[in-house]
Amino acid sequence: MIKLYGFWRSLAAYRVRIALRLKNILFEETEVDLLAGAQFKPDFDALNPQHAVPVLEHEGQHLIQSLPIIEYLEERFPAHPLLPTDALGRARVRALAQIAASDVHPLIVPRVRNFLSAEMGLDEPQKLRFIQHWFGMGSAALEAKLAREAETGTCAHGDSVTMADVVLASHVVGARLFKTDLSNAPTLTALVDRCLAQPAFDPGRLTQGH
Amino acid sequence: MIKLYGFWRSLAAYRVRIALRLKNILFEETEVDLLAGAQFKPDFDALNPQHAVPVLEHEGQHLIQSLPIIEYLEERFPAHPLLPTDALGRARVRALAQIAASDVHPLIVPRVRNFLSAEMGLDEPQKLRFIQHWFGMGSAALEAKLAREAETGTCAHGDSVTMADVVLASHVVGARLFKTDLSNAPTLTALVDRCLAQPAFDPGRLTQGH
Repeated sequence: MIKLYGFWRSLAAYRVRIALRLKNILFEETEVDLLAGAQFKPDFDALNPQHAVPVLEHEGQHLIQSLPIIEYLEERFPAHPLLPTDALGRARVRALAQIAASDVHPLIVPRVRNFLSAEMGLDEPQKLRFIQHWFGMGSAALEAKLAREAETGTCAHGDSVTMADVVLASHVVGARLFKTDLSNAPTLTALVDRCLAQPAFDPGRLTQGH
Repeated sequence: MIKLYGFWRSLAAYRVRIALRLKNILFEETEVDLLAGAQFKPDFDALNPQHAVPVLEHEGQHLIQSLPIIEYLEERFPAHPLLPTDALGRARVRALAQIAASDVHPLIVPRVRNFLSAEMGLDEPQKLRFIQHWFGMGSAALEAKLAREAETGTCAHGDSVTMADVVLASHVVGARLFKTDLSNAPTLTALVDRCLAQPAFDPGRLTQGH
């Protein structure tokens, strides 16, 4: 049995959960209470010294980082593929995923928000502006690519769901949590809303707070 | 001919340059002067609406984001492989790469540093503390994984250079530019220093400023 160590409000764990569901892989989830500091306990540190979720347990091994986990699932469970078959298409899907997962999400996670207030003295309105700014920058770049490029279909790459849609869904869910203005990203929000209508993309309690 | 759009002080372009050299792929490089704002000009916006380097030009196509570019090079130019042959090994290499490329580097790039000073009012000592904090956090996580895990060899994964070493080299070069204390990461710095002794890892002018 595959086990996912996740947390209800983690956008990165949400990505892995979507991928597991899309691939019809049976899994159980263990909640790591990030608000209570469970990620710093020795048991969890042994699984992931980065003290973050998701962690995927498979065949006694523990894998970290959402995109490498999804790539691993793709290699070990090829049914319901989440990457195109051509190298150029895979590069595009991976790039769309990285824009959101690398250049936006790491800037707005709780550890960064806490550091900005506790150590840099930012107040809540400043932090919110910081968060909205980076969600906005990422959304603008994603929108430009999606709107311009012929590869975009009803999904981010063609008409089948890929890893790009998985990550873009986490991006838009996160942006909306922080009330980011996404009116300039209609292509992005339209394709994510089509995804969010599917059960595999159920964000669960993620939409309830941050 | 492959063309790399890069910039001398970009850690992400440095990664792609290393990968191209390790694979003995002939390429030419076009400098995009990020200090002069060349990334915002219409010509470059057409190549990458994210307004960042690297961009790789191959067979008339333009690819963005350093890790997807390296994965593409790996698929199209399989000689001198930069990923292990087993799925578990690939997942580990990709995870090590993401810790540095996703959870540290996007926090310290010029666009973020500029926003923190111009919009959030941070002074230079605060910005330096912010930068050193995240380089330190990432280095601690990397060190724990590298020191604990049996897969670590003379390189990050076994005794052959992989994408993990490529990204860890950019991480350590960046951390040193900002005078981050890396004394708690001896495994990390030792393996990167072995890499830096190889011509493919020449950081060029990167060590001259930031």
